[in-house]
Amino acid sequence: MTQQGILIVISGPSGTGKGTICRELLRSNPRLKYSISATTRLPRVGEVDGVNYLFTGKEQFKTMIDNGELLEWAEVYGNFYGTPRRYVLDQLHSGFDVVLEIDTQGAMKVKDNFSQGVYVYVVPPSLDELADRIYKRGTDSPEVIKNRLHCASSELKLAHNYHYIVVNDQVAAAVQRIETIITAEKYRAERNTDLIDSLYRSKCIGKPASKG
Amino acid sequence: MTQQGILIVISGPSGTGKGTICRELLRSNPRLKYSISATTRLPRVGEVDGVNYLFTGKEQFKTMIDNGELLEWAEVYGNFYGTPRRYVLDQLHSGFDVVLEIDTQGAMKVKDNFSQGVYVYVVPPSLDELADRIYKRGTDSPEVIKNRLHCASSELKLAHNYHYIVVNDQVAAAVQRIETIITAEKYRAERNTDLIDSLYRSKCIGKPASKG
Repeated sequence: MTQQGILIVISGPSGTGKGTICRELLRSNPRLKYSISATTRLPRVGEVDGVNYLFTGKEQFKTMIDNGELLEWAEVYGNFYGTPRRYVLDQLHSGFDVVLEIDTQGAMKVKDNFSQGVYVYVVPPSLDELADRIYKRGTDSPEVIKNRLHCASSELKLAHNYHYIVVNDQVAAAVQRIETIITAEKYRAERNTDLIDSLYRSKCIGKPASKG
Repeated sequence: MTQQGILIVISGPSGTGKGTICRELLRSNPRLKYSISATTRLPRVGEVDGVNYLFTGKEQFKTMIDNGELLEWAEVYGNFYGTPRRYVLDQLHSGFDVVLEIDTQGAMKVKDNFSQGVYVYVVPPSLDELADRIYKRGTDSPEVIKNRLHCASSELKLAHNYHYIVVNDQVAAAVQRIETIITAEKYRAERNTDLIDSLYRSKCIGKPASKG
């Protein structure tokens, strides 16, 4: 009896380091599967269909939306991105856990469609620390940084919609916290109804087992 | 900011080994506190008031019931036993986690009074294994064993009322599973509202921190 896998949704404000955490989590846990997004944008050099993304045409993508084949989707600068339900379910049924890294808005859409997932919100140790990280990344103008921090601050209001809060003070520590969460979730009663059923149905002979 | 402690209620069918697990859990985690029961029965030789039990008179016990001072109570062969709420709350407020070992009926009463606790149901690997254990214990007649197994089987129907199911195949493994559960529970969103509030309220200067 293989226990069904768990969908672990890792989200958090921009700049909080969720991407780094997910990469490290997947690297150190080879049995974890990464949820691959479908997208209508063209592949970049080196990107492989079915590995980095599922590259699809716009018509095909719209059909997936209409058929409820996506756990969430969004349009960004004219391109569509989404999380195919089938890939996730296939992995879970095979007993693999799946990691989905996604922004706050996307995570809440996934939760609406898949409440049995585990929703983890990664937060910085402080907003000053977050400002520091975004600044050091060196990719954003002061105006954009200010906007990102404003968004981060307001996104924190959504933290109560998640199951767990993980502070990213150190990447290794944050990864370990998520590993602990995944292990503990395996023991949740609602994930062990088959175990209880089989215990309940097991023939009990009411006398010492033969080895006794 | 000290995070409030967690009440961990360890329950399970008779003979499942929850007592051994709790002793080992407390032995290897000195910061865990054991929830001390109040009882009206007389101390046995070597039992210390405030350590093994809180020994109380019947009138005092009834006053505790009337005043809602017990998380649960039961009468067994003319003696009263109960879990004083005050002791548990004091430990939790001081940041200590508290372990309460209790039968299924008691656990469900505690849950009614303290839903924010963590409810762990310990089960045997199989009912045959449970029969074997009870038999080896050598304290029960075949009739009593049969009755215990019947009770165990029907108690399994209550497993879905618990948060977690832990199989006691090996004591050390079962203890480690409960330790993992306790650690993960510290990251639950509902236990970290203060953290999110303080992050949200923290002054963000919107520019690199001075150390940046």
